[in-house]
Amino acid sequence: MAKNAQWIYARKPEGAVTAAHFEPAERDIPEPRDGEVLVRTTLLSLDPASRAWMAARTYRSMLEPGEVMAGWGLGEVVKSNDAKFAPGDLVSGEYGWQRYAVLPARALTKHDKRIKPEHILGVLGITGLTAYFGLLDVGRPRPGETVLVSAAAGAVGSIAGQIAKIAGCRVVGSTSSDEKCRWIVDELGFDAAVNYNSGHLLQDVRAACPNGVDVYFDNTGGEMLTVALSRMNMWGRVSCCGVVSQYNATAPAAGPAGVPGFLVTKRIRMEGFVVMDFYQRRQEAETALARWVEQGKLKAPVEIVEGFENMPKALEGLFAGKNKGKLMVRV
Amino acid sequence: MAKNAQWIYARKPEGAVTAAHFEPAERDIPEPRDGEVLVRTTLLSLDPASRAWMAARTYRSMLEPGEVMAGWGLGEVVKSNDAKFAPGDLVSGEYGWQRYAVLPARALTKHDKRIKPEHILGVLGITGLTAYFGLLDVGRPRPGETVLVSAAAGAVGSIAGQIAKIAGCRVVGSTSSDEKCRWIVDELGFDAAVNYNSGHLLQDVRAACPNGVDVYFDNTGGEMLTVALSRMNMWGRVSCCGVVSQYNATAPAAGPAGVPGFLVTKRIRMEGFVVMDFYQRRQEAETALARWVEQGKLKAPVEIVEGFENMPKALEGLFAGKNKGKLMVRV
Repeated sequence: MAKNAQWIYARKPEGAVTAAHFEPAERDIPEPRDGEVLVRTTLLSLDPASRAWMAARTYRSMLEPGEVMAGWGLGEVVKSNDAKFAPGDLVSGEYGWQRYAVLPARALTKHDKRIKPEHILGVLGITGLTAYFGLLDVGRPRPGETVLVSAAAGAVGSIAGQIAKIAGCRVVGSTSSDEKCRWIVDELGFDAAVNYNSGHLLQDVRAACPNGVDVYFDNTGGEMLTVALSRMNMWGRVSCCGVVSQYNATAPAAGPAGVPGFLVTKRIRMEGFVVMDFYQRRQEAETALARWVEQGKLKAPVEIVEGFENMPKALEGLFAGKNKGKLMVRV
Repeated sequence: MAKNAQWIYARKPEGAVTAAHFEPAERDIPEPRDGEVLVRTTLLSLDPASRAWMAARTYRSMLEPGEVMAGWGLGEVVKSNDAKFAPGDLVSGEYGWQRYAVLPARALTKHDKRIKPEHILGVLGITGLTAYFGLLDVGRPRPGETVLVSAAAGAVGSIAGQIAKIAGCRVVGSTSSDEKCRWIVDELGFDAAVNYNSGHLLQDVRAACPNGVDVYFDNTGGEMLTVALSRMNMWGRVSCCGVVSQYNATAPAAGPAGVPGFLVTKRIRMEGFVVMDFYQRRQEAETALARWVEQGKLKAPVEIVEGFENMPKALEGLFAGKNKGKLMVRV
């Protein structure tokens, strides 16, 4: 029988995570026990949060060197010891970076095979749900307000910005290159974009948001957050989704200047969230996201890297900001 | 006729505000026009926020050197050109640091003379309302939760902590001396206290809050906020009331480490507020606060400095953390 190829999280990164922090392994394909299911991985998601999992306990336990690298995936049921699943079913779960995985049935979600696989892991999966709940429930934009989104060419940012457009807002995105700035405006319909490597970020944000910022959807933290806070309007909201500027940092950075002063003066609400907290309402989000995609109102850009052997390199590329939209690897 | 003694905000402080930033003046007592009222000041409130008014535009326009120093006061109507007020009425408003003030009738509030004057400016005034709405509406404590209050021996903090006790919480206060620590525990009924000059603040907060912190009522910002954030429980709330540790700073400080990382991981809501936003609900708060005072559940400690000539010195003392409870000057 075939062996199970894996990528082991081998060494804890000091700064940036690179391919050198992973090692390949080959083990026997495990046997599912009662209530468990064996799946064959077909598509694996790459997520900025994976760097945070290596650094500390977050909303999950810290990853320890020697473990199979964690990650969400899509696959096909090979063998099921649970009545809810049968061989051939299309299922998603936290497979980790491996060609085969055994999971308890309750940790798997079955999907309609007519849906594009990349949408299941992307716009209709954790990525889309994060954007949906983080923008609408935490940020609570109202029509006509200005919404600023950081890492706006990334998986979550690109969806969050488009949802803000659907909600009737003026939408400004920040990203790391002029090319990605053009892309979010020309392809995704953002009203304006700023490059946060321009060297004059504050002036650029001021120019792009002449009426200030009502909702800031923060994927980055760091200088971008400080600048956004300085441009917030009264009763503004900051939806704290991620801290990608900090994940590779070796020491905890000082927080954004203006906290808590601006928060008091401008009555700002700053609130963190994790998408799992909204899990019971996922049907609402999936239905809305699928409808917007079908209506052509929401583009779900995806970059797919071919080949399981390229997982570590693909993650390295994610942190280098090379991708536009959601990054995945076809196993 | 008597002249109007005033204290002029004469020079913008670079760092700490001291008596040297004020100058006395004597002017004619102004005549009220139609719809205006002349009041004689009897009691003036001293508030940490006054330092913020000097530094920048906050929820009010920035104070400019040459203006009469701003501040809330209580007084007696001398002459009224408005039907709602008559000579002898007890009224409060933003009088500024002067013995006589003319204000539009709509900027004055009439009070029952049976209420203690120091309560009108203190526990039943802006101080008490700030504590009431900031704790209950922004912090939203639930019975059994742990509430941490900074500047807990100060005017707002001492009230906020006692309201948290009334709400059934375990309440921990932080303050700047061992003596004030003892006072908030022995006199005000806090469950525990930490001295933030101890040199081991993090350990002290950890020991005083063995179950973590659910609500942090922040009057200080600075290191205290960083430490509090690190001890927050999941879905914790930070009610941002003031930034007294920063008001005298010459440059904007870096924000608290852990923002926004902790906010995401722990789903924390951090929210600033200004008491004026709750003005329409002041009756609710005044009724509750008055009842608690009457029932002996809420102590309203006050320190009264005698003499209008001591206003600048009293403000200097406020920033040196000398007072316990609400500081006022009897004019």
